[in-house]
Amino acid sequence: MSPAIAIIGSGNVATQLGLALQNKGLNIACVYSKTHNNAIALAQLLDTKAVQFTNEIPNNLDWYIIAVNDDAIAAVSAQLNVNGIVTHTSGSVSIEVLCKHERRGVFYPLQTITKNANIDFSAINILVESADENDAILIKKYAKLLSDKVLEVSSAQRQMLHVAAVFANNFTNHLMGIAKEILETNNLPTNLLDDLILQTANKATLQHPFSIQTGPKVRNDINTINKHIELLQSNSDYLRLYLLLTESIGSKTNH
Amino acid sequence: MSPAIAIIGSGNVATQLGLALQNKGLNIACVYSKTHNNAIALAQLLDTKAVQFTNEIPNNLDWYIIAVNDDAIAAVSAQLNVNGIVTHTSGSVSIEVLCKHERRGVFYPLQTITKNANIDFSAINILVESADENDAILIKKYAKLLSDKVLEVSSAQRQMLHVAAVFANNFTNHLMGIAKEILETNNLPTNLLDDLILQTANKATLQHPFSIQTGPKVRNDINTINKHIELLQSNSDYLRLYLLLTESIGSKTNH
Repeated sequence: MSPAIAIIGSGNVATQLGLALQNKGLNIACVYSKTHNNAIALAQLLDTKAVQFTNEIPNNLDWYIIAVNDDAIAAVSAQLNVNGIVTHTSGSVSIEVLCKHERRGVFYPLQTITKNANIDFSAINILVESADENDAILIKKYAKLLSDKVLEVSSAQRQMLHVAAVFANNFTNHLMGIAKEILETNNLPTNLLDDLILQTANKATLQHPFSIQTGPKVRNDINTINKHIELLQSNSDYLRLYLLLTESIGSKTNH
Repeated sequence: MSPAIAIIGSGNVATQLGLALQNKGLNIACVYSKTHNNAIALAQLLDTKAVQFTNEIPNNLDWYIIAVNDDAIAAVSAQLNVNGIVTHTSGSVSIEVLCKHERRGVFYPLQTITKNANIDFSAINILVESADENDAILIKKYAKLLSDKVLEVSSAQRQMLHVAAVFANNFTNHLMGIAKEILETNNLPTNLLDDLILQTANKATLQHPFSIQTGPKVRNDINTINKHIELLQSNSDYLRLYLLLTESIGSKTNH
């Protein structure tokens, strides 16, 4: 018999995971959501039943997938009295939030930030973790149904990955916003640096960014840096960022 | 008769511009370079003559293109005694460095940072400037031979564009380097965030980055921020960047 799963949650990850696992032949036994109407809608989509209360979730299923907001994982975990593996799907929450369950794990599809888009699981990394070696094998087996890129990582690694993602996404996005604002303020077309932006990202995936760093600090071009400092005098926030980032680049070079 | 040009310099921009303009029917009358052998090599490529001293450059040509390092523009400009338009090709140097020449201008192909790659001028923005209105028309005409994306911008605008490019390229590259270093340090594959990096850049070209900012600061997720601060304690440089960038993101949101 194919493994039976309870989907707990009704958002994007819950929906996409439910559809993808069902598509691979797993049996979605039921759906629970804090908002019962959402559970009903997702259950219809998956052609299964919605349950209204957590104590209606069967305790003898193989796998319980908690795909809810980070802040809600602990509460819903505490309500579950089950024997199968209980996993959450969060990138930033420790496995220990599920400590009530001996058979606990993490099943984290390292998806991009896009909301409500269809997730092509085969293209993304799935990061898994378990408190138990046999459960780890089982969770990896499930993950490999969806993707060839399955990786076992600890909660500590996953949390540092999350920090790294803040640098690689949130912070770079903010700096690109500043660049575009500078263009706007100076009556320049805001798409003027778009090719540079795309090439910068592309190159960073091909070589280590530190090894291909360019710019005035790497050239030790003090004149240009002083000129830039002068030009940024009217915006103390941008000036502070310029100074600190320039200093940080300097700490990675020989200058 | 087609306009006659002197190419001053023998580096990548000199070479690519010489080839592209010749290809459009302009007459490359001579090549000068501080290193005479380099001038000879480029002159051979362009099937024209190399001159060894600046006073051998004919003074009655239409256009003198100074495509040398930023720091060398002033010196070579001072050596020229000519009647045609004199332009440099730098993104960060003011037109006033050419003040000896009444007919001065800037012809700046806003290329990406790639060295020695073939430049497809038709795909890139050419930013032009001139001290004289008629010369501006002429320089734009030359630029439009190479690209449809010709834009007249002042030296002040060009210099702010350069600051913006530091934010959009140098600084984002550095942050992606930090992200990759964090992955390395934690024994995670360094390509784990590559999809995110590419999507972040792509999105930034489609919508204003400030309007699509994500992450803990935008969500006002203090718990996650405090967790990240704790995780970065061992690296004061990265911690300072985290704090300042988080604060800066906050200044663009409602929190």
